[in-house]
Amino acid sequence: MPADELSGFIGHWLPQIEAEMRAVLDVGDAAVSAHYAMMRYHLGWADASLQPQTLPSGKRLRPILCLLACSEVGGDVARGLPAAAGIELLHNFSLIHDDIEDGDEMRRHRPTVWKLWGVPQAINAGDGMFTLAFAAFQRLGDRGVDPATTLAALDIFTQTCLALTEGQHLDIGFESRDQVRVDEYLRMIQGKTAALVGASVALGALIGGASPSVIDHLRRFGHATGLAFQIQDDILGIWGDPAVTGKAAGNDILRRKKSLPLLYALNHAQTGKALHKAFAAEVSPGDVPAVMALLDQAGARAYAEAEMRTQHAQAEDALRAALGDSAAASPLLALANSLLHRSA
Amino acid sequence: MPADELSGFIGHWLPQIEAEMRAVLDVGDAAVSAHYAMMRYHLGWADASLQPQTLPSGKRLRPILCLLACSEVGGDVARGLPAAAGIELLHNFSLIHDDIEDGDEMRRHRPTVWKLWGVPQAINAGDGMFTLAFAAFQRLGDRGVDPATTLAALDIFTQTCLALTEGQHLDIGFESRDQVRVDEYLRMIQGKTAALVGASVALGALIGGASPSVIDHLRRFGHATGLAFQIQDDILGIWGDPAVTGKAAGNDILRRKKSLPLLYALNHAQTGKALHKAFAAEVSPGDVPAVMALLDQAGARAYAEAEMRTQHAQAEDALRAALGDSAAASPLLALANSLLHRSA
Repeated sequence: MPADELSGFIGHWLPQIEAEMRAVLDVGDAAVSAHYAMMRYHLGWADASLQPQTLPSGKRLRPILCLLACSEVGGDVARGLPAAAGIELLHNFSLIHDDIEDGDEMRRHRPTVWKLWGVPQAINAGDGMFTLAFAAFQRLGDRGVDPATTLAALDIFTQTCLALTEGQHLDIGFESRDQVRVDEYLRMIQGKTAALVGASVALGALIGGASPSVIDHLRRFGHATGLAFQIQDDILGIWGDPAVTGKAAGNDILRRKKSLPLLYALNHAQTGKALHKAFAAEVSPGDVPAVMALLDQAGARAYAEAEMRTQHAQAEDALRAALGDSAAASPLLALANSLLHRSA
Repeated sequence: MPADELSGFIGHWLPQIEAEMRAVLDVGDAAVSAHYAMMRYHLGWADASLQPQTLPSGKRLRPILCLLACSEVGGDVARGLPAAAGIELLHNFSLIHDDIEDGDEMRRHRPTVWKLWGVPQAINAGDGMFTLAFAAFQRLGDRGVDPATTLAALDIFTQTCLALTEGQHLDIGFESRDQVRVDEYLRMIQGKTAALVGASVALGALIGGASPSVIDHLRRFGHATGLAFQIQDDILGIWGDPAVTGKAAGNDILRRKKSLPLLYALNHAQTGKALHKAFAAEVSPGDVPAVMALLDQAGARAYAEAEMRTQHAQAEDALRAALGDSAAASPLLALANSLLHRSA
C-alpha cells in the first residue's frame, strides 16, 4: 500500500473499528445499563444523562496502527478488528483510571467519569471496560483466527497491560518525589505509552500471519514510535502554540509536570538549582518566561528533539528490518512521520 | 473421593495453589518491585514495609472448589492449578478495589492497600492484579491444556469478571438509595458473589474434561452455593456470636448495611416504616435491641434462612444432575454443607 493511501485506509476502517467496539459493549441487561452507559459516555457515545450521543471519535491511533500492520504483512485486515477494538478499549480503560489517579476533572472538554458519578462507580466502570478489552479478543475466533493465535495475541495483550500498570506505578510515584532522573522517566513512558503502541503493531502483524521475527521488528517499530510520540507531546506541552494546542502557553510549566524537557533541566548542573527553586511553589503565568529561559539555558528543547529523532530513527530501522525496501513507502512510516510533525 | 477425604485434599492442594499464585506474581524488575510488593502485602506475603512475611493464607475457597470439581469429573487436578490461581487473584483484585470504593480502612486486621499507599497506587495495584489473574490462564498450556480449552476457560472467566463489575455497580448504587427491593439485592449478590463461585466450579470441570451439560450443572451448583454462602454471611452479620465472629453484636445493624434480612424488614408492611426511621440517623449499640425486635416481628431471620435452604436445595439438585448418585458422597457437597453450618 503506498503511503498516500493512508487516509483512504483510515476512512475505510475507522467506522468498522467503532462498530466492533460498539458490538463488544453491547452487553448487560436493563438493571445494569448505567454501568455500560458510563463507559459509553467516556467513549463519546452518550451524554452526561447517559442518553445516546455521537461525538467525533478520537484518532484511534493504536487500532489504526494494528490494522495497518496486519495489512502490511499481507493479512486479512478484517480479522484484526477484534484486537483493534480490544486495544482501544484498554487505552480508554486506562484513561478512566488515570483521571481518578491524577484528579483530572475534564477530558476532551467534558467532565470525567469520576467527576460525574463519583470515584467508586468510576473505578468500577474502568474495571468493566478493562474486562471488555479482554472480551474483545474472544471475537477473533468468529473471524477465523485459530485458538493458538488468539492465545498468543492474548499473551502479548496481557504482558502489555502489566507494562501499563508498571508505567503508571512509576508515574504516580514521581508525583511525590523531588528528584526524578531522565532514565527513570524514559522507563516510565516505555510502560505507560510505548508498550501499548508496540503491542498494537505486533498484534496486527501476528494476526496477519507474520513470522516471529517480523512481529518483533514491528513491535520495536511501534515501541520507538510510541516513545517519539510521547516526547513530541512533552515538547508541545511547553513550546506548543496555544492557538493550535488549545492549552495555555507553557501549560506543562504551569502544571509543574515532570516531562522530559523539564526533568532534563531539573537534572542539569547549571539550571537544576534555579528550576527547583522556581518549582518549589505554585507557578503563575508570570513565572513562565523565567522558566523558559532556564530551559533554553539547559538546552532542554534541543535535548528532547534529539531524543525524539533518535527514537524516530530506531523506528525506521526496525521498520526496514521488518519490511525491507518497501518500508520507505509504508503507510506505517507515513503515520509515524505525521505524528512527529504535528503541532497539537 | 469420599467426603471425609476433603481435608486431606485441601491439605495437599492448598500449598500448591499458593505456589502457583506466587509463580504468577514473580514478575517485574527492580524499578517496579513496589508495585508487585503491594499486591504481595494484600495477599499476606509482605508486611507494610514491603518486606517478605507469611501470614496464614485465607481459606482459598474458590480455588479449592475449582480443583475439587476438576477431581470430581475425573480430571488431572494439577492441570487446574493455573485457573485456581487466576480465580483467587481475581477475587483479591476485587477486594483491593472494593476497599477503596467502600472506604474500608482495615481488612483481616491490617490496614488496606489504599490506606497505606493512597488511592492512586491502590487502584493501580488492583489493575495489576487483575491483569495477573488473566496472565495465570496463559500457564494452562504449560500443564498440557490445549489452546481451545484455555480459550473456553478465558471466556468463562471474562464473563465472570463482567458479572462481578455489574454486581459491584448495583452495590455501589444501593448505598445512595433509600429503597432497595429484595429481588434487586439478590441480583446484586448473583453478580458480586455467586458468579465467581459458579465459575470456579465450572472452570475446574471444563479443565477436567467434563461435558458441556456437566459443566453447566456444576456451574449452577456453585452459583446456588455462592448465594447460600452470602445469605449465611448476612445472617451471621446480624445474629452471629461476637465471641466467634470477632465482630460486634448486630454488626451489620450498626453499619446499616443493606443485607438480605434488613432489606426484607425494610420492605415489610408492618416493620418498614419504623425501621426506616431507626436507620435515618447513625445507629448506636443501644439501638440494636429495638432493631432486632423489628427484625423478629418481620420474620426476617426465618425468611433469610428459608431462602438459604432454597439455594442449598438447588445446589444439591444441580450436583445430582452433574454427578448422579455419587453426588451425596461428593466432597463438593461436604464443602458446601460446611459453609452453611459455619458460625463465623
